[in-house]
Amino acid sequence: VNEFERIERFTRFFEAAPAPAGPGDDCAVLPPQRRQSCVTTDTVVDGVHFSTQTSSMADIGHKALAVNLSDLAAMGAVPDWALCSLQLPPLTSVRDIEAIAKGMAPLARAHGLKLIGGNVSRSPVLAISMTVSGIFKGSNAAVLRSGAQPGDVVYVSGALGAASCGLALLKNPRETFGLSRTLRARAVAAQRRPAPHVALGRQVAPFANAGIDVSDGLLADLGHIAKASKVAVHLERERIPVFAQAETPFRETLLELAMSGGEDYVLAFTVSASCNKVFAAALRRARFDVFEVGRVGQGSGVWVDGVKMKGSAGHVHF
Amino acid sequence: VNEFERIERFTRFFEAAPAPAGPGDDCAVLPPQRRQSCVTTDTVVDGVHFSTQTSSMADIGHKALAVNLSDLAAMGAVPDWALCSLQLPPLTSVRDIEAIAKGMAPLARAHGLKLIGGNVSRSPVLAISMTVSGIFKGSNAAVLRSGAQPGDVVYVSGALGAASCGLALLKNPRETFGLSRTLRARAVAAQRRPAPHVALGRQVAPFANAGIDVSDGLLADLGHIAKASKVAVHLERERIPVFAQAETPFRETLLELAMSGGEDYVLAFTVSASCNKVFAAALRRARFDVFEVGRVGQGSGVWVDGVKMKGSAGHVHF
Repeated sequence: VNEFERIERFTRFFEAAPAPAGPGDDCAVLPPQRRQSCVTTDTVVDGVHFSTQTSSMADIGHKALAVNLSDLAAMGAVPDWALCSLQLPPLTSVRDIEAIAKGMAPLARAHGLKLIGGNVSRSPVLAISMTVSGIFKGSNAAVLRSGAQPGDVVYVSGALGAASCGLALLKNPRETFGLSRTLRARAVAAQRRPAPHVALGRQVAPFANAGIDVSDGLLADLGHIAKASKVAVHLERERIPVFAQAETPFRETLLELAMSGGEDYVLAFTVSASCNKVFAAALRRARFDVFEVGRVGQGSGVWVDGVKMKGSAGHVHF
Repeated sequence: VNEFERIERFTRFFEAAPAPAGPGDDCAVLPPQRRQSCVTTDTVVDGVHFSTQTSSMADIGHKALAVNLSDLAAMGAVPDWALCSLQLPPLTSVRDIEAIAKGMAPLARAHGLKLIGGNVSRSPVLAISMTVSGIFKGSNAAVLRSGAQPGDVVYVSGALGAASCGLALLKNPRETFGLSRTLRARAVAAQRRPAPHVALGRQVAPFANAGIDVSDGLLADLGHIAKASKVAVHLERERIPVFAQAETPFRETLLELAMSGGEDYVLAFTVSASCNKVFAAALRRARFDVFEVGRVGQGSGVWVDGVKMKGSAGHVHF
């Protein structure tokens, strides 16, 4: 099976991209675009962002796209198109390629994302590099990291720590963190198959002054907002939604994972205090849960209960 | 040096991207685009598309971008923006990262290409995955693989076989192919630092019915045109511009490399016979050399002097 057949076996799982775009030429052709759009690229590598020992090929296909969709979610963009670059070890079977596609295609379909091109290359290490683009609908403008204002309320869009808890469980099958089998399975699923908050990001966008997706860890990612916006972010420890914290005596460990573990792919964002009531009502109407975790202030850095946190290099993967 | 510092050390070699685009947020933001545009992605991997044993980091940075620019050239597009995903082994130094940037940035600058984003990830193997976008200026439309018509004249835009000759020389330092030191150096340079035919592609676009860049090898790539256009491509062996063929007794070997070796990154394209005179005059005025190598006919496949060639899986890299 040569390169061109491999590409065909992969792309057949995706809906046909409308002309003039589409895989199979030197480039995909895009129609004129009357709105602002945005574009991002992210790569997942075997042994770093996943392990073929503990994730299926379908999990890997899902995750490769999910981490990119999360970047669109943070901007408040609506997914539009994707390019997929597969780096495949020589022994990768057609069945593996199809499994990657079967894990990726449903997520693409669910978000209305068109696969318009990509490439396949040999590599000693399995890796998937994707580029995705989104557009800004209605009156939405891009939510940047740099717009936070002193006085803003700080939110996160979901529980934190599950993905890095799942990573620890996968690395050490004897570990339990005192969690039930069900919660351990949920943590592992969060690590293997993150669910990007795309619809929520779009709802939040009209209200958010700044936003980011939590991929490196809450402290590290809020640190990016603090730095880009030239503000301080003050968190209240008690308000941080920690994955499964009520279900285990290992409260401190899970809090630590929530603060510094990565790959949760929830959103963190700031909203002007003056809009806060309207925002909360709009989100409730749309049935989205968000968690108020702190405030933006003057100054710099990320603070927890009044203590300034040291700089974090972010999440360490596998 | 953490991930964020590595990104900064890389991007500082590129011209600042104009707002609203630019590295440093979850996505780069693109302004509305009134014209059609196109987008492509390609990856180079250590041990497959280059070897750190025989290429410098600057060579590798150059090549990672060049192979993508060549896809824009084939479409007749003008380079616009790029995303760069670096997969770096743990021991990669900041000096290496800067050397990659120093090899890539001059090529970007020469083509007016803006680096608007990317990412850095750890990997056991050095690889660079890039996504580039181009726009169609003036009355140019995208040159596809599927537009060749029986009767068209087939052209290539430069000598063939140099890059794969260079690859063979790098793999076996005792090999000479009977070439002078100067010609051997030129072949090695073609392998390490391909020069994409972007300006030529733009000149050719108004006349070309179909086009492709020769990355997999002349026979394989003309095979793509034949298949996509549902035509036969007939080549005349004597007319194929073979790298350095006049300078060595190893004529057959170099012809073989010209036909089936890859990575020359010249363009192959077809022009209606009725436009051929106007085309040739326009190219001469623009001081571009192109080589007429055959004709498009009814049927299928690629033929050389009346003999149908077997399907080729394309170039085998390192």
